[in-house]
This record gives sequence, structure tokens and C-alpha cells, in this order.
Amino acid sequence: MDIEITKISGGVTAPRGFRASGVHCGLRKNKSRRDLALIAADCRCSAAGVYTTNKVFAAPVGVTRAHLSDGYAQAIICNSGNANTCTADGYDKANLTCARLAEELGIAECDIAVASTGVIGQPLPIEPIITAIPALAAALDGSPDGSQSAAAAIMTTDTKLKEYACEFKLGGASKQDAAVKLGGICKGSGMIEPNMATMLGFITTDAAIEPAALQAALKSVVCDTFNMVSIDGDTSTNDMVVIMASGLAGNTRITAPEGEDYEIFRAALLTLCTRMAKSIASDGEGATKLLECNIANYYDADGARKLAKSVIKSSLVKTAMFGADANWGRVLCALGYAGVALDTDKIDVRFRSKSGEIAVCSGGRAIPVDEEKAKEILSRDYIYIDVDCGCGSAAATAWGCDLSYEYVRINGDYRS
Amino acid sequence: MDIEITKISGGVTAPRGFRASGVHCGLRKNKSRRDLALIAADCRCSAAGVYTTNKVFAAPVGVTRAHLSDGYAQAIICNSGNANTCTADGYDKANLTCARLAEELGIAECDIAVASTGVIGQPLPIEPIITAIPALAAALDGSPDGSQSAAAAIMTTDTKLKEYACEFKLGGASKQDAAVKLGGICKGSGMIEPNMATMLGFITTDAAIEPAALQAALKSVVCDTFNMVSIDGDTSTNDMVVIMASGLAGNTRITAPEGEDYEIFRAALLTLCTRMAKSIASDGEGATKLLECNIANYYDADGARKLAKSVIKSSLVKTAMFGADANWGRVLCALGYAGVALDTDKIDVRFRSKSGEIAVCSGGRAIPVDEEKAKEILSRDYIYIDVDCGCGSAAATAWGCDLSYEYVRINGDYRS
Repeated sequence: MDIEITKISGGVTAPRGFRASGVHCGLRKNKSRRDLALIAADCRCSAAGVYTTNKVFAAPVGVTRAHLSDGYAQAIICNSGNANTCTADGYDKANLTCARLAEELGIAECDIAVASTGVIGQPLPIEPIITAIPALAAALDGSPDGSQSAAAAIMTTDTKLKEYACEFKLGGASKQDAAVKLGGICKGSGMIEPNMATMLGFITTDAAIEPAALQAALKSVVCDTFNMVSIDGDTSTNDMVVIMASGLAGNTRITAPEGEDYEIFRAALLTLCTRMAKSIASDGEGATKLLECNIANYYDADGARKLAKSVIKSSLVKTAMFGADANWGRVLCALGYAGVALDTDKIDVRFRSKSGEIAVCSGGRAIPVDEEKAKEILSRDYIYIDVDCGCGSAAATAWGCDLSYEYVRINGDYRS
Repeated sequence: MDIEITKISGGVTAPRGFRASGVHCGLRKNKSRRDLALIAADCRCSAAGVYTTNKVFAAPVGVTRAHLSDGYAQAIICNSGNANTCTADGYDKANLTCARLAEELGIAECDIAVASTGVIGQPLPIEPIITAIPALAAALDGSPDGSQSAAAAIMTTDTKLKEYACEFKLGGASKQDAAVKLGGICKGSGMIEPNMATMLGFITTDAAIEPAALQAALKSVVCDTFNMVSIDGDTSTNDMVVIMASGLAGNTRITAPEGEDYEIFRAALLTLCTRMAKSIASDGEGATKLLECNIANYYDADGARKLAKSVIKSSLVKTAMFGADANWGRVLCALGYAGVALDTDKIDVRFRSKSGEIAVCSGGRAIPVDEEKAKEILSRDYIYIDVDCGCGSAAATAWGCDLSYEYVRINGDYRS
């Protein structure tokens, strides 16, 4: 199947039928930082979500899971600055936020997804949110500015605003504008080690698709994208990825997770989520480099994922990359404790970047390495660690970042 | 059972029948640093070992496992400066080391345990080791100096020499000196996240005990001590703990893993290994604080261990402790992704140190915290994180350290 997916500018307001906004409501002390975001659809949307697998999860995660259980939603509201987790009144406040927003937008409370990100265990100040909802709704904007404001409002220690969009064709899409669009904003640069969802990711599309097919597409794509990112091995209590589909592209409705149109949609979603996942990894707290570990020729895909994640998570690999040190023994070590079968004698390892590539290990044994060349390759800001397991045909890719002094500074002093 | 276990000074030469030495053979450039250690018994000993579970393991791990499979040993030789792992001739060199030492000491090659620690994937220079063996044997010393020299020779990035000893009584021990002794040396401050054994630990005892009982005692003790330490989540390729029992204390021989004498021996070994494990955690690379997580009132011991380890391993908990920040939400988050059942609403968390204690979470919810007091408590160098799960009676303890700038510096620049 030859699928053409084109990157376009913009974010969640690129697809037809969506507006977004972001304001400063007062959860953050710095008045120049937005801390409350809204994405609203012009019509009720098919919706799907994936959530943290952490047994300690935030109140908004519980509320959103319940609200989206019928497969429909029309708005997403998200605050930064406080996680609304592990406090006595977390559910009350998440529900109150939804009720007030439903009233303001004139939609059903159960069609609202709510999310929070920030410090755990401190009561969420609810007044600033309730007070700001009218202004937040009034600021809704279908232009790229709306998406940017929302993307800015969900940032915590992120250093870069993250929004992406793409377009592609589906059968029966409106003739005057044949393209279907997908757009997304996300945040996350610490406490990132998803098991099911990850960080916060909000995606919109104007594709017409049934909730069950949308959920299937999202779940399968998250598994190979957001779930393959690890910044520090900590699975957050607040992770969620939510997608809303307005259906306004006029394509022939996708009714089940099968068929050519579903596969095209899934491929486009995979492309978008891969970009979002990589943007999160490269903006990891204190990161100076994006790391990509490619596992090739392993027995099965699940094992390959575990191997890729194990390498990306290793503190010793991460610090070696920070120091541009071709200490590939640490890569083998991390493969060895990934908890899956391994034929050490068949493993090849190669480091690669824009400066070239260098083989460092063949058949599980050292290869003489030109340390100067290795240093040059590892000094770039996007490093590939390619592992050939020599025992099958499955592959997987994981993304992460190096471990720097800055990570320690950020997390040793987060609340100050 | 009331067991009296007394700490005594010294290390592996404290028990009767053992001598030790450590020399500089040339694997390290710095001539003032010892890099080759030997522990030798006057007689053939009951012996037991536990080894890394990493599927990529060092050649000396494979050789030692084979040599100790009959339950006997008489000497342990260990080099620092090179891991002898993932190289084409690793086994040849580990075997050659044993053969030459066997000849020098006049003992069987298969009664020698061999270990290495250092960089992975670089061929082990064997000449310096072979050349130094006569001097190493000649330096064998049954006084505390011998143990100290050996302990110094196995250090890598360790900042402190680690040797411990204790004495206790067993039935039938020689009347002129009723006490049985245990002594140990160990190393390890990075790549420490054992699954079965951990780092390098060499233990001696003059107790008379059968190999099977010795193996049972070691295995059960390691599970609650060395395996409960995590510095950086990386399970090394070279971990091993080996114990030799000379039998010279003259106690009634312990023939099976049961009975009062076995329990006393096991309790003494637990005491020794707990001290060794804590010394490793507090000397973690870049560590400024020793962290101890105590899980109480959980359903079962295995789950309690997983919870304790999860907290100790969390990069976010570790950096918070480095910054003396009472960010207990990160503790709950780490409990939540430990992969075991949890009733969040029953969890209490408390921080404790020599400066006092402070409850921060009750029934899974925030408690108003005096941040000044919390800061004072967390500014000490030994922090207890006490978690009450409120759902059973099992307990577990894990040890680790904070994550500092220094960890990043050490591991970003290890080989330079």
C-alpha cells in the first residue's frame, strides 16, 4: 500500500471543526505563562483515549476515562501547574471543572475530557480555573494561533512548544478539499516512562470514523510511539492521550478497524504520533541529545520493544551519550538485563549520526574502534544506536535522551 | 530465638584459616592503586556463589560458576580496571589466570573463583596479571592488613574501602575460642541493580558447614540484602558474591539448611550482608545521601520488595532527595508503577532522619506539611522513607542513594 502523508503546519486547529485557546488563570505565579488550555469541537466527536497504567492515577484521569467510555467527546480542558493527584477533593474539582465548562459551552458534561499536569499531592486551587472558564471559551480560535496558545498552556518543564499536523487522502472525502487532516499538541519532558499512554497528548482529526475504530487505531499506534519513549523511567500518574474526530472531512465513514481507509488513517496517526513522541524525547528534562535505539532481526516485536526500551532507559548508556563516549559495553549490558532471550554471540552494535556511522561490536565481541571518529559521531544531537540481534526478523524503535547535569538540577529543585 | 551477633574489626582475614593480599599489577595506570586481589584459604573450603542474572555476563562469571559447582573452593582472585566481558578471548584469559594461580598456590584449578570489574569490551591485558601472581601469593597476609589490601585492590569508582566482620556462637565451637567469625569485603558503586547477586562481594567464615547449606544461606540472604540495593538500575555483567567456609572454628558441622545453628549462621550472614549492602548504597556513584525505603504491612514479601525497590530506583525520588525536597507524590507515583496490587487509599508515607520524622501522606492523601521541618529532616545524609501499605503484614527494605550532578560527571566521563 502506497500511502502519501504530507506534513503541514499547525496543530489541533488544522483539522476542520476545531478551535482552541490557552490563558493564564493563576495556577502559575508567572503571569506571562499560560496555564489553562481548551480544545473544543464544533460538533460532538468520536473520541478515544489511552491512560497511564500507574495504579496511583490522577483524579482527571479517572474522570476522563469515565466520560470517554461511551466513545464520544466535544472538548478537552487541561491545566498545568498542579497534577490534581493524591488529594482528598481531586474528583470533586475535576468534576466541577467539567460542569462549569459544559455550562459555558452548552455541551454535555460527559463529553468533556479533563487533564492536569504539575506537582502531585497539593490541593488544586479551583477558583482560578472556574473564574477563567468564560475568558477561556471566549478566546477559542480556529486559526493556528488557537492551537499555539493551547500548546503553550500545557507546558511544564518543556522548553519547546509541541504541535504537529499532517494531511492525507481517504475515499469519499469532500471533493472541494479532498484531504483529511490530523493535528496534535503534546507536552512532557520528565516523569516519562509510559506503559500504555504517556505524558499529555491531544489529537484532533476531521476524519469520519466510528469510536471503536478510533480507539483501536489510537491504542495500536501509542504502543509503537509514545510508549517507546523513556526520559527517566518514571511512569506518571497523569499520562493520557485523547483523540477527537469531527467527521467534517466528509470521507466515507470508517466503521471498523480494517480495510484500506482504516489502514491509511492508522498510518497517518502513526506518523503524527511518531513525530510527537520524538519531540518529547528530544525535549527531555536536561536533554542535550535525542537517542534512538533501533532493534533489528529479533525473534518477536514485543521482545524487540523491550530490548529497545532497556537500552534507552539505561542511566549508564544515557550518561555515556552525554559524554560522547562510545562505551558500547553498556548497550550490551542493558540488552542483557531486558528480561528476554538473547544470543549474545550474534549481536552487532553500531553508533550513527549525521557525522557518519561506526561499528563497535560484532558477534557480541569488541571491534577495534577509532575513538576520535566515534567521539565525532556521538557529539551530534541525534544519535542512533543500531542493534542487530541476528536471530529473527522483528524490529522496534525506542526514543530517549541523554542524562545531564541539568536533569539533576531541574528535578532536585522542581518546586522551588 | 535470641541471637547475639557482635561486630568486630577486620574483614576476610578475621575468620580462622584465611589470608589475603592486594598488589598493583599494571592494569591501572596509576601505580599507587592496587588492581589485583587474592583471598586464599589454608584448606579446601565449602563454597557458594550467586551471580548476575544479566544474559550478557563476564567470562570470569562463567568460569567461577563452573568451578564452584562442586561446592568447594580455596581461593578467590579478582582484578579491577577491566571487566573481561564481551571480548573474544575472555574465557581463555580467565582460565589462564586460574591455572597460573593454582600452580603458584599448589591447589586445584577448579577450586579457584575468578572475578573482574571495570570497562566492558576491551581485551583484558593478561601479562600484568600472570607476571604479578608470584608477588601476589608472596604478599598473602592473615592479619587485618591482608584484608585491607585485597579490599583496596577491588575498588573502582568506590570512594571508601569496604570490609566488615562479626562473630557469634554456634554449638560445639572450639572451647578455647568459642566464637565463629564471618568476614567480608565488597565493592560497587555504579551499574548496581542486582537481580540475584550484585557487585563484587567476597565473604569468609570459619564455620563448619556443608556446601548445600552454605548455598541456601547465601542465596536467601542475598535476596534481602545485596538484591535490595539499587544505585542506577543497571544490572552489571560481572556481579558475584562468593563465600568460603574453612570449618576451622570447630563447631558441630552444619549439614543442612535447618536447625538452630543454621538459623544462627544465617542471621549472622544477614547482619554482615546488610552492612555490606548499605555500604555499597551509601557509596553509590555521586551519592550524597543513603536512602532506605521501608515497606510495612503489605500483602506479601515479594510484592513488598518490589515496592521498596521501585521507590529506591525512581530517578525523580532520587533527585528530590538530593534537593532535600519533600516531594512525596513521587514516592506514591513510584509505588503505583511497581507492578503489584495496591490500595492507594490506605497508603501512609513518612520521611525520617536523625533530625526527626514527618508524616507527609495519610490514606493516599496529602497532609499539610511544615516544609521547613521537612527540609531539615531531608538534609541529613541517611534518609528513611517509611511506607505503610495498610493491607497486610509483610515487610521489605531497600537501599539506594540520591542522584547528583556527580553521578552524571562520573559516568559521562568514565573512561577518560
